[in-house]
Amino acid sequence: MPFYPLNEENIRDYIRQRPALADFFPPDARLHIREVGDGNLNFVYIIENEEDPSNSMVIKQALPFLRVVGESWPLTQERARYEAEALKEHNKYAPGLAPELYDFDEEMYAIAMEYLGTHEIMRKPMVRGVKFPKFADHISSFLAQTLYFTSDYYLSGPEKKLLQARFVNEELRKLQEDFVYTNPYKESPENNWNPLVDDEVQAVRSDPALKLEIAAMKDSYMNHAEALIHADLHTGSIMINQEDTRVIDPEFAFFGPMGYDVGAVLQNLVLNYLSHYAHTPDPEARADYQAWILDTIRDIWNQFAEKFERLWVENARPDSELMPLDYWDFPGGEEAFAQYRQRVIQHILEETAGHGGVKFLRRMMGIVSVWDISSIEDPEKRAVAERAAIHIGKRWLMERKSVHSIDDLIGIVLEETQHLA
Amino acid sequence: MPFYPLNEENIRDYIRQRPALADFFPPDARLHIREVGDGNLNFVYIIENEEDPSNSMVIKQALPFLRVVGESWPLTQERARYEAEALKEHNKYAPGLAPELYDFDEEMYAIAMEYLGTHEIMRKPMVRGVKFPKFADHISSFLAQTLYFTSDYYLSGPEKKLLQARFVNEELRKLQEDFVYTNPYKESPENNWNPLVDDEVQAVRSDPALKLEIAAMKDSYMNHAEALIHADLHTGSIMINQEDTRVIDPEFAFFGPMGYDVGAVLQNLVLNYLSHYAHTPDPEARADYQAWILDTIRDIWNQFAEKFERLWVENARPDSELMPLDYWDFPGGEEAFAQYRQRVIQHILEETAGHGGVKFLRRMMGIVSVWDISSIEDPEKRAVAERAAIHIGKRWLMERKSVHSIDDLIGIVLEETQHLA
Repeated sequence: MPFYPLNEENIRDYIRQRPALADFFPPDARLHIREVGDGNLNFVYIIENEEDPSNSMVIKQALPFLRVVGESWPLTQERARYEAEALKEHNKYAPGLAPELYDFDEEMYAIAMEYLGTHEIMRKPMVRGVKFPKFADHISSFLAQTLYFTSDYYLSGPEKKLLQARFVNEELRKLQEDFVYTNPYKESPENNWNPLVDDEVQAVRSDPALKLEIAAMKDSYMNHAEALIHADLHTGSIMINQEDTRVIDPEFAFFGPMGYDVGAVLQNLVLNYLSHYAHTPDPEARADYQAWILDTIRDIWNQFAEKFERLWVENARPDSELMPLDYWDFPGGEEAFAQYRQRVIQHILEETAGHGGVKFLRRMMGIVSVWDISSIEDPEKRAVAERAAIHIGKRWLMERKSVHSIDDLIGIVLEETQHLA
Repeated sequence: MPFYPLNEENIRDYIRQRPALADFFPPDARLHIREVGDGNLNFVYIIENEEDPSNSMVIKQALPFLRVVGESWPLTQERARYEAEALKEHNKYAPGLAPELYDFDEEMYAIAMEYLGTHEIMRKPMVRGVKFPKFADHISSFLAQTLYFTSDYYLSGPEKKLLQARFVNEELRKLQEDFVYTNPYKESPENNWNPLVDDEVQAVRSDPALKLEIAAMKDSYMNHAEALIHADLHTGSIMINQEDTRVIDPEFAFFGPMGYDVGAVLQNLVLNYLSHYAHTPDPEARADYQAWILDTIRDIWNQFAEKFERLWVENARPDSELMPLDYWDFPGGEEAFAQYRQRVIQHILEETAGHGGVKFLRRMMGIVSVWDISSIEDPEKRAVAERAAIHIGKRWLMERKSVHSIDDLIGIVLEETQHLA
């Protein structure tokens, strides 16, 4: 069957003719259907059984063009395949931390998955100052599990390569290569920034030492195929409520550096932290929420490091490629193995700082900011957060090789914001 | 057509029915055919026109099993596809430095290519003490051209990923992962070593610091997809005469660290250097040949570094991914770009030392030595070369981060052999 765009009329028949979905709703169910895609690349339909709203699903269909401009800007529908492939792996290794996948239709580029009706996109409640006490535990598990189990510390060499071969993803990777690591730091028509931080933007673009380090991080991003990373793990890719956390939208997934995902989470939390200088004028309320954010950052890293290492100790197999267990079978080998694990985790921290640092910069001067910051209407107040973000990003990046604990990264945030308190 | 093994009878008909080969020999040519495969994985047929020996070709057919043990040890015939794919790239980027590819038959796993009738496998004349004055120039060109043009310094992001997707090569990569970076340093039945160096072998296997660094190099080997590397570039993969050099047998090719190929060449030259303490008893003749080897090592690196950088300056495109030229378009950007190139080249040197260092160790205690050393019949004399190789390998690996020029690596060779002069 060739591709056709789903709509609120034809989607009922579509569901009935898909073997994996035909029995999802009772035959006589009255379905409530609405399209909620707020982007411009996909249709996103929520389909609910009116008599039993818990009997519901989402169908997300990738369109072959940017929806806002009609059919004129082709974009690979293959992104739906990558999203479905990644969701499979996330459900396998981090069950309960991603939406359940019901069906992938490779001719229609349509993914049917669990509807998360009681969750919100995390960015929004964080702008309102809502705390999520379970988030650090959940996201550190997601990171540790998806990264460890797709790395050479768990898989055999051939298993890893065959899994990696399913994530070539050359078109979406190019978007990140351009929009995170290249275009923001040179003339490019899509860049935009607050004129009030123009001095800082121009300084970044013409700082030779900084640009060398950005190039080094781009090399790591492109070439260090450590594990299956989500590759777009900001707080807009997290659906959350007080009890539950789900990571969505993994269409950028590929085998890349683990620190990229960890850095994306931590860096987005810091951006939210900075946004509260505008969103939360009351100093006490602001300090309280910002303290929660820094505690969460500390907990995420420390729990991630602890869980990653525990997974490794408990799951490494005789044929895990880096290294098979008996490689460490010599007097003192147990300590050497422990030292090796610590080295790997220290390397992830360094890359968390490096990739997170670059991502601060790109959000302030590239194609797209984050809603936490862009929703600050007063340009002066927005510039306060933006300047701090640029300074923090630069330091995370430039000082990454001397970072030894998460407190070093938090310390930079505190130093660069102390004048704002 | 299904696979069948070629033999000296059916190969004439085979050639006639292949479109790319049918007109290679005149219709009435008398063909002289001989099988010369000295390995146990492939048939290698040389087919010559008796009236005109320059009218000749080689057909190499991959067998689905290890030939020595009959059909009992299956091995992927896909290696023939990887060899053909790599030969295509080598001919594209380093024409004249690899055998010309005439045909690849993906059902028969047969490669038809140029016959190099006046060349020898380089290892053999080097054991006899033959100098090759043009080798440094040739091999440095091969390295610079094949590595630069398949890297992100030349290709766009999508071009690189699509090329990389043709070299998954999970089975042959596993062989190197095991036999270079893992098994030699632990108990494994295929390991063998000279009992006279047993102390050194046991010391390597139980040295925690050394084993951490071997694991780090294995990580680089597996995960740093810098360029299309040959991945088995020892002097047994080089066909040579006084005028001409060709790199053969690239079936292990994949996207890996550039330093692996450079390190393989330099390390094999040092092993030959060491072998002459036995092969060339006359001190003057030996010193003369060893001096040529060290000069060649120096020339290879320095010419490689110079050619690699020149290719980069002359060929980088607006869409080369690391980085597009206008990324460096700011006051001082030209110097920053030059500094970036030097950083990349310094990184290749460091990895040359690291991967080369590991390869010294594996040849002394793993599944297979090199003929330069194994052909030394007296175990005492062989142990002299083997001990030096282990010491040099360990130091290249452990000291790689403080290596700043090729003379540092040569210096280690001289220091570890001065008591032998």
